[in-house]
Amino acid sequence: MLKLIASVDVEVPFHDVDAMNVAWHGHYLKYFELARCALLRLFDYDYPQMQASGFLWPIVECHLKYVRPALYSQKLRVEATLLEYENRIRIGYLIRDIDSGERLTKGYTVQVAVDATTRELQFVSPAIVLNNLEKACAR
Amino acid sequence: MLKLIASVDVEVPFHDVDAMNVAWHGHYLKYFELARCALLRLFDYDYPQMQASGFLWPIVECHLKYVRPALYSQKLRVEATLLEYENRIRIGYLIRDIDSGERLTKGYTVQVAVDATTRELQFVSPAIVLNNLEKACAR
Amino acid sequence: MLKLIASVDVEVPFHDVDAMNVAWHGHYLKYFELARCALLRLFDYDYPQMQASGFLWPIVECHLKYVRPALYSQKLRVEATLLEYENRIRIGYLIRDIDSGERLTKGYTVQVAVDATTRELQFVSPAIVLNNLEKACAR
Amino acid sequence: MLKLIASVDVEVPFHDVDAMNVAWHGHYLKYFELARCALLRLFDYDYPQMQASGFLWPIVECHLKYVRPALYSQKLRVEATLLEYENRIRIGYLIRDIDSGERLTKGYTVQVAVDATTRELQFVSPAIVLNNLEKACAR
Repeated sequence: MLKLIASVDVEVPFHDVDAMNVAWHGHYLKYFELARCALLRLFDYDYPQMQASGFLWPIVECHLKYVRPALYSQKLRVEATLLEYENRIRIGYLIRDIDSGERLTKGYTVQVAVDATTRELQFVSPAIVLNNLEKACAR
Repeated sequence: MLKLIASVDVEVPFHDVDAMNVAWHGHYLKYFELARCALLRLFDYDYPQMQASGFLWPIVECHLKYVRPALYSQKLRVEATLLEYENRIRIGYLIRDIDSGERLTKGYTVQVAVDATTRELQFVSPAIVLNNLEKACAR
Repeated sequence: MLKLIASVDVEVPFHDVDAMNVAWHGHYLKYFELARCALLRLFDYDYPQMQASGFLWPIVECHLKYVRPALYSQKLRVEATLLEYENRIRIGYLIRDIDSGERLTKGYTVQVAVDATTRELQFVSPAIVLNNLEKACAR
Repeated sequence: MLKLIASVDVEVPFHDVDAMNVAWHGHYLKYFELARCALLRLFDYDYPQMQASGFLWPIVECHLKYVRPALYSQKLRVEATLLEYENRIRIGYLIRDIDSGERLTKGYTVQVAVDATTRELQFVSPAIVLNNLEKACAR
C-alpha cells in the first residue's frame, strides 16, 4: 500500500466566520479541498491532469466531524492522507490548530472516476493513477 | 417520537457551478442549511430563538452522499427531516430534482447544545426543544 | 432604447451572515447575479445561450454601494435593469427590503463579449444580443 | 499623509473557479479582504481591535475592475494601500500575477465607523485610528 500525505496551512478569514463567531461548518470542505489538491499534486494528478487523462473524479461522499470550533485568524494545519486508490480515491483529513496541535476537525472524501466522454463510472481506477503513484513514491 | 419535515426549493445558481460544470460538492451544505432552518422554524427554534434561549447549537457532524450531479439552473427540492431531538438534533436531508423526482444527494447533520455563557456541552437537549416541538406538533 | 427589468427575491441565509451579524458585503455580488440571470433570461441570453452563441461575457467592472445592512432571514427584492447593450452589457441593481421598501444596496456590473474560440474582445455586441432583445420587447 | 501598504499571496483554489474556467468575479472581494486585514493589522486595527474599540466599520462601497481573468492554481499577489483614514477608511487594491507581474484586477473599498452601541455613523474617524497609525508609522 502506497502512502502519501500532504498538508496546507490555512488562516481562518473573516468572510468564513459566521454569526456565532466561528468558522461556518460548510467552509471546512474548502479547507479539505486545498489539502486534497496538494495531495493530488504529489502524484501529478490534480484537476488539470485528471481532465487531461480523460476522467472526471466527482466527490461522491463526504464526512466531517467537528471536535472544536475555529475562530477568526486562527492558524490551522490541514493534513490529507491517501487512504484508497485502487477502485476509488479515498482521502482522510485532519485539521489541527497549528500552535497547540489540538485536533479541531476530521473527515474523509471519496471520489470515483467517470469517463469524461461517455460519463461511464469506472469501477477500477484508471491505470494512470497507479502509474503516477508508483512514480511519486519512487522519487 | 414527534416527526417534522420541511422542504425548500433551490435553483442551482451560476456561482455554485464549478469548472466541471456541476454544483461544487461543498455548496450542498448551504442547501442543507436552508432546509434545516425551514425545519427549525416549524418549532420556533431557528438561530435567533436558539440564541435567545441561551444555547448555541454547533454542527458536530455532517455526512453527504452524492448520487447524481446538479447542473446550472437545475431546480432542486431539499427535504429536511427531524430524526433525533432528545439529546442532540439530528436531521436527515434528501435532495431531488423537482421535475423528475430523481434523488441527487442525501445526508445528515448532527448538532449539540452548548450553553452560550459557560460553553458547556449539554448531554440532554434543553427543555425548550421538547416544549416547542410538542406545541408545533399539536398545531 | 429597449428597456428590460427583472427581479428576484432573496432571503438572507445564515451562511451569508458574518461576525457583525449582517450579510457579508461580498455576498451581494451573488444576489446581483441571481437578478442578472433573471434579466438575461428575459431575452434568452443566459449563460448557456451565451456559450451556445460562441461568446463569453466576463464581468469587467462591478460597483456596489451599501446604504443599510441586511440581517439574517431578511427578505430582499433584487431588481436588475438593462442599462446598455450595444457595445457591452451594463446592468444596474437595486436591493430593497421587501416589507418596508427601503433601499439597502445598489450597484452595477459591466460585461463585454469575448469570442469563445479566439478570446478576442468584441467592441460591438454580437448581433444575437440586439436580435434577442428586439424579440423579447416585441412579445 | 501616512502611507501603509500590505500584501498577501493567494493561489486560486478549485472552489473559486466557475464554469468559464476562471475565478468567479465575486470571489475577488475575498482576496481584497485578506489584503485589507493584513493592512489593518499593520496598525493594530483588524476586526477584533475594531470591536474592542467600540466601533464597527461596515463596508459602504466597493469597486472592482477586472483586466485579465485568473485561472485555477494561478498565484496572485494582492496589494492593499491605505488611501484615506481621517473621515473614513478607503483602501485601494491591486492584484497581479506573481510570476509575470501582470495586473489582473484593481479596486477599492470604503468603510465608515459606526458606534457599536448607538449605531450612529461617525463623520470623523475615532481617535484610535490616527493614534494607531502614528504608532505604526513610527516603528
